[in-house]
Amino acid sequence: MANDSATTARKTNRRAGGRSGNARRTTGFHLEQMPWRIPVNPDRPTEPVDTEGVQAIHKGAMHILENIGIEFLNDEALTILKDAGCRVTGNNVRMGEDFVMEMVARAPTEFTITPRNPDRAVTIGGKHMVFVNVSSPPNSWDIHRGKRSGDFETFKDFMKLTQFFNCIHIAGGYPVEPIDIHPSVRHLDCLFEKLTLTDKTCHAYSLGRERVEDVMEMVRIAGGLSDDEFNAAPRMYTNINSVSPLKHDFPMIDGALRLARRGQPVMVTPFTLAGAMAPVTMSGAVTLSIAEGLAAIALLQYAAPGCPVGIGTFTSNVDMRSGAPAFGTPEYMRATQITGQLARFYGLPLRSSGVCTANIPDAQAMWETSNSLWAAVQSGTNMVYHAAGWLEGGLIASPEKFVMDCEVLQMIQRYFEPATFATTPEDIALSAITEVGPNGHYFGCAHTQARYTDAFYSPIASDWRNYEAWEADGAVDTPERAHRIYRGIVDNFEPPTMDESIREELADYVARRKAEGGAPTDF
Amino acid sequence: MANDSATTARKTNRRAGGRSGNARRTTGFHLEQMPWRIPVNPDRPTEPVDTEGVQAIHKGAMHILENIGIEFLNDEALTILKDAGCRVTGNNVRMGEDFVMEMVARAPTEFTITPRNPDRAVTIGGKHMVFVNVSSPPNSWDIHRGKRSGDFETFKDFMKLTQFFNCIHIAGGYPVEPIDIHPSVRHLDCLFEKLTLTDKTCHAYSLGRERVEDVMEMVRIAGGLSDDEFNAAPRMYTNINSVSPLKHDFPMIDGALRLARRGQPVMVTPFTLAGAMAPVTMSGAVTLSIAEGLAAIALLQYAAPGCPVGIGTFTSNVDMRSGAPAFGTPEYMRATQITGQLARFYGLPLRSSGVCTANIPDAQAMWETSNSLWAAVQSGTNMVYHAAGWLEGGLIASPEKFVMDCEVLQMIQRYFEPATFATTPEDIALSAITEVGPNGHYFGCAHTQARYTDAFYSPIASDWRNYEAWEADGAVDTPERAHRIYRGIVDNFEPPTMDESIREELADYVARRKAEGGAPTDF
Repeated sequence: MANDSATTARKTNRRAGGRSGNARRTTGFHLEQMPWRIPVNPDRPTEPVDTEGVQAIHKGAMHILENIGIEFLNDEALTILKDAGCRVTGNNVRMGEDFVMEMVARAPTEFTITPRNPDRAVTIGGKHMVFVNVSSPPNSWDIHRGKRSGDFETFKDFMKLTQFFNCIHIAGGYPVEPIDIHPSVRHLDCLFEKLTLTDKTCHAYSLGRERVEDVMEMVRIAGGLSDDEFNAAPRMYTNINSVSPLKHDFPMIDGALRLARRGQPVMVTPFTLAGAMAPVTMSGAVTLSIAEGLAAIALLQYAAPGCPVGIGTFTSNVDMRSGAPAFGTPEYMRATQITGQLARFYGLPLRSSGVCTANIPDAQAMWETSNSLWAAVQSGTNMVYHAAGWLEGGLIASPEKFVMDCEVLQMIQRYFEPATFATTPEDIALSAITEVGPNGHYFGCAHTQARYTDAFYSPIASDWRNYEAWEADGAVDTPERAHRIYRGIVDNFEPPTMDESIREELADYVARRKAEGGAPTDF
Repeated sequence: MANDSATTARKTNRRAGGRSGNARRTTGFHLEQMPWRIPVNPDRPTEPVDTEGVQAIHKGAMHILENIGIEFLNDEALTILKDAGCRVTGNNVRMGEDFVMEMVARAPTEFTITPRNPDRAVTIGGKHMVFVNVSSPPNSWDIHRGKRSGDFETFKDFMKLTQFFNCIHIAGGYPVEPIDIHPSVRHLDCLFEKLTLTDKTCHAYSLGRERVEDVMEMVRIAGGLSDDEFNAAPRMYTNINSVSPLKHDFPMIDGALRLARRGQPVMVTPFTLAGAMAPVTMSGAVTLSIAEGLAAIALLQYAAPGCPVGIGTFTSNVDMRSGAPAFGTPEYMRATQITGQLARFYGLPLRSSGVCTANIPDAQAMWETSNSLWAAVQSGTNMVYHAAGWLEGGLIASPEKFVMDCEVLQMIQRYFEPATFATTPEDIALSAITEVGPNGHYFGCAHTQARYTDAFYSPIASDWRNYEAWEADGAVDTPERAHRIYRGIVDNFEPPTMDESIREELADYVARRKAEGGAPTDF
């Protein structure tokens, strides 16, 4: 097969490790991947906007909050904000700059989420950058089955990929929506699988009280925690979206308040599509996004002072011919970078995404995804949603794309490593240059020999052989190589360890809540 | 067909234009591309190395030049450098920091090359960034014919692509080596086609006196210039490579001196492959590259004070399993960025490349190419070689890849446009946000209507339709879409205008030089 480079163990590589429980050695499948780490982004962010530009967007957002107002379709939120001194007219809430900035200042600039396996704790904020699996597509696509609706088996496959790859730090939303599970109990089945197939940080959809409470309870059980222990520190998180323009709906705010009051993080991510739900100008769309995001953050900080929050960006542009969203565009990149500047201005962790418009994992998918992932790097993003597996503007999750994206994520992690830009005397290597002189080569010199096993990034899905070797071995293209890796991972998957009593308690909880009917489905 | 988005004229788009002579309207083929412009990179470069790191590399390079020395396999160069006060021992030349820095300071930080069509003048240096077609692969590959040796017809096809795309600013080296033309006269036939099929800046290979002199003469004729006019300003350029480690060969230096003395620019690009011809550490490989580059630049500035030069980077790493070069890696990105820091330290224009390791234009090709092109942006590169069409580490030129890369180049050009990050009151758009309020959308508002035709990037090879529309239309993947665009361009190509007397003079020159036997092939 073509990707022996990706599937053959290379015992000499010191970057091996961190794979325990991930791959069964007996079957011959083995993927050399990077060990688990929380990447730290050493680069100065790209700042397209100057100080005056940041002020212009900030003042614009404050103008929106003070003079136009945000609609909260949630009575509890209205009551809280009225109590806080905001001007509440029906669902419309107007808040002054002083109040907003006082509330925003309460938010920590950085926090750590500790899932049931404390070795998988993630730090959100500062220069840290973590990657989340693709979340919420209704469909999946793979090279053999094409596009089809999401189902539970496919959901589990993606959970296995999420657990397997060390460069995926968080098991976010459902990689595909398993429509073969009734919505009233879907969250119970999904969370049971997520909590047993992975030991990484979990997410709760803020889609109704029961769902949120069930997920918090299941995460508490999986961690073997008391209520007090759960409440004492971040163990999971939610992400909420506004309904742009200028609106927050009931269930998202309800869920956010529930988590915030128990000390669990809330990422607030408006979806401001320039030219559709937001101004056609990128800084206008960012201004609207910031206003919507800060409104929710102010609410949460008043209700639960100091609760961990982050601000998200999902600002992109439409295709002006069709009105459909386009992702991974130049405009998307700039909006992400600008939002990063604002996030630092407010001292808030930033979420962005790894996104594309393409329908299949071909060349277009990767130039668009590269654009969005490098924009995440350049913006100083702390949490990258949809970092692996996303296609068709979020309507498809693809296992091949998941594997390909993990290649790019690993390259970003390697790019962050100081070894790639160190300038110690050993790196400048004058003694090796003297030794080799003008007529030798560096393969054999001591300086190379001491370093070659981990001097460079080792790819997983890339084929670096020449054309003839690649062709003689079947001319296997990237999606097929990625497919074989995906099958190898899923077919050889071994779940992380879990105490049997905890597994039983989780199963009992799911059974009891199913018997009670799960969650209402009429919201 | 799938790419009607790319081939249908959209008359409303104000970015139309600059296409005169590029596409025959009568056939129905039309590609909406960006107009010609010299992109200006507004971003602050990414600087992985701090001031001390820049000094460490600089001092390392100076140590190499002063204590190890560079071999010049060119007697004229040795004579010149001896005259300049360098210590010459056999072919080895050692030069002190003061001399090197004095010579480097003679080089202009920026210069303009004016080809036969002055509208196609390119500025090299400062924040300008220009793109050069793929140069020098021995083979071509397309989706229907696979990999095959380069030939003259394919060479001409690539020249047509080079001329057609406004985002390709320079007709660099041969996109494929036309092996069906005898090497003694190949440069004559190739340059005739290059100078008649395109009106963009040309390049001469520094591969022997006759080739260099012929190309200069042909560029002079094509521009309708006297010798004095040709010598008065840059009209073309050459690129030379060192023979790493620590060596410059005869023909490259010979050609460089010939061009420099006639005021024509020389880009000096060492090929320092970390772990093979250079230290396995990236800053070591960059240090060696800088030393080799500055040695040649010092020579040129002593021989022709103030002559336009640039420094190139071609530092990447090998695949440590095979020893073969790998491109578009994280290490490649850092080496490019670091070289950018050094280029600014010396005040020299920078050349880098758009490169990949992949064998076919699939997903891997585009994540690797995106890595290298974004590294070019982040490094402040002024001239991007191989910006469109490169595959298999430079062994293949592909027309489909050419079209795909032009999509990425256009996105970079759009990314540079201030409109993507402007923060004027009209951009912040508070009046539109007020007008639309919480219950409307932005499609119809005046702010959008006034801007929508050119608010966002319009793709050429991307398909932004949803999966079902794309599938119903044949499920055409990116390489096939790119292939159709390539055929449309080539089949409908109309060459730029050229005065008939000049064409005849060029043809006569080629005939005469062929009769004389062309260039010797024994070097």
